[in-house]
Amino acid sequence: MAASLHPQCMGSAHGRVTSWETGAAPIPAALPYFVAFSQLLGLTVVAVTGAWLGLYRGGVAWESALQFNVHPLCMVIGLVFLQGDALLVYRVFRNEAKRTTKVLHGLLHVFALVIALVGLVAVFDYHKKKGYADLYSLHSWCGILVFVLYFVQWIVGFSFFLFPGASFSLRSRYRPQHVFFGATIFVLSVGTALLGLKEALLFKLGADYSKFEPEGVLANTLGLLLVCFGVVVLYILTPPEWKRPSQAEEQALSMDFKTLTEGDSPSSQ
Amino acid sequence: MAASLHPQCMGSAHGRVTSWETGAAPIPAALPYFVAFSQLLGLTVVAVTGAWLGLYRGGVAWESALQFNVHPLCMVIGLVFLQGDALLVYRVFRNEAKRTTKVLHGLLHVFALVIALVGLVAVFDYHKKKGYADLYSLHSWCGILVFVLYFVQWIVGFSFFLFPGASFSLRSRYRPQHVFFGATIFVLSVGTALLGLKEALLFKLGADYSKFEPEGVLANTLGLLLVCFGVVVLYILTPPEWKRPSQAEEQALSMDFKTLTEGDSPSSQ
Repeated sequence: MAASLHPQCMGSAHGRVTSWETGAAPIPAALPYFVAFSQLLGLTVVAVTGAWLGLYRGGVAWESALQFNVHPLCMVIGLVFLQGDALLVYRVFRNEAKRTTKVLHGLLHVFALVIALVGLVAVFDYHKKKGYADLYSLHSWCGILVFVLYFVQWIVGFSFFLFPGASFSLRSRYRPQHVFFGATIFVLSVGTALLGLKEALLFKLGADYSKFEPEGVLANTLGLLLVCFGVVVLYILTPPEWKRPSQAEEQALSMDFKTLTEGDSPSSQ
Repeated sequence: MAASLHPQCMGSAHGRVTSWETGAAPIPAALPYFVAFSQLLGLTVVAVTGAWLGLYRGGVAWESALQFNVHPLCMVIGLVFLQGDALLVYRVFRNEAKRTTKVLHGLLHVFALVIALVGLVAVFDYHKKKGYADLYSLHSWCGILVFVLYFVQWIVGFSFFLFPGASFSLRSRYRPQHVFFGATIFVLSVGTALLGLKEALLFKLGADYSKFEPEGVLANTLGLLLVCFGVVVLYILTPPEWKRPSQAEEQALSMDFKTLTEGDSPSSQ
């Protein structure tokens, strides 16, 4: 709750802005600190995942029993850290051309998707080599659901916003859905990572988990760090005042569109 | 993704409204269907939790080894179903007095809190009788965090919005934080339930989990239903057009306040 009581982020204080660059749209005062904190948390999550796999699971390799460990590492880097950062692009790049920002958002999601795919191949390949069953656990059901939703969201987002690009009216109607499902898929990714972490702990530690084994404590801490990263990213995405301001050209288009649609449906407020 | 492609809920279509009661503020056309769907999902989640505990865990009782089963049942009813419904109060009761709606929101959260407390006592008491360790798992760490946050949120919300009530300016500043942390605590509650479900499955089924045991399949389905309930509740909370319209008196107050604060800080956009 600390964040909620911090005077810089309470309610309308979200709107306090300072202009760091002459002539550019002003940056909300608290935003850079929250973004910096999110990156510190995100990098800590990746580092602690690496430390957990290195210290207690023998490290990471493709051609051995360590292939399994490629899975959590790739999923945390791709579907947690990079996916989270892709969502933050529109809060961080506020004055660059809209198209550049869009391409960066799409590219970060492509990197995340490819890294996640490597992580998926690693676990299926490992299961095959060991003769283990696939897709029986809640973690795997959630994981497949998240991966399919992520892929569909990318394809639909690309078709609407990049190439070939839908009409302005269609984009405006789809945008809130894209944002909602983007945030939802990110939250589901973090939740699925927690389920996987728990599964890995219980399979290896069993009843020793209750003896506060160092691995258990480190992995629980990693779980809480994952939750914190998720919450901070969503916190940055929430205030309307922290959204990327629309540029002069977009505002003109948006006003035209608003006039047109309000003429169409006067009761839409 | 089905919801995102439904024409009634795409982007600005959120704003399509019909007036069901003459003289009352109109109700967004798709909202009642989404609320009905959320209730169907919520009740299904409670029923499937009951079915799981009844069919595979011997049912629920306080004075026996079945005391443990009180824990998941209470947590799902309190911190998932009732908490979710408490968040929806402001979307469902749109024309009742603001104070009545507030009291209902607060009361639903009190019921949720009390039921969750019974669920907590059940598991700690069960652990004590069996001589099991407490608070070693990621599920328990997340659970305690959620319960403390939920309690603090209730106390702070009560102090600001009900009794004695803060000034209009303080309430307006705190409201976005209350809403953000309310939704976050709800999501964390659903996530913690999934971790608990997974723990219960792995402790009992062990390696048999991978043989697609009926209990495993039922519990995985329960996990997905919990996720769906969480997503639908958040989906209903998201569109600005679906928020409870402020009543004439509140609008006048809000305008005065806006004029005052904008006079105070001209750069706050």
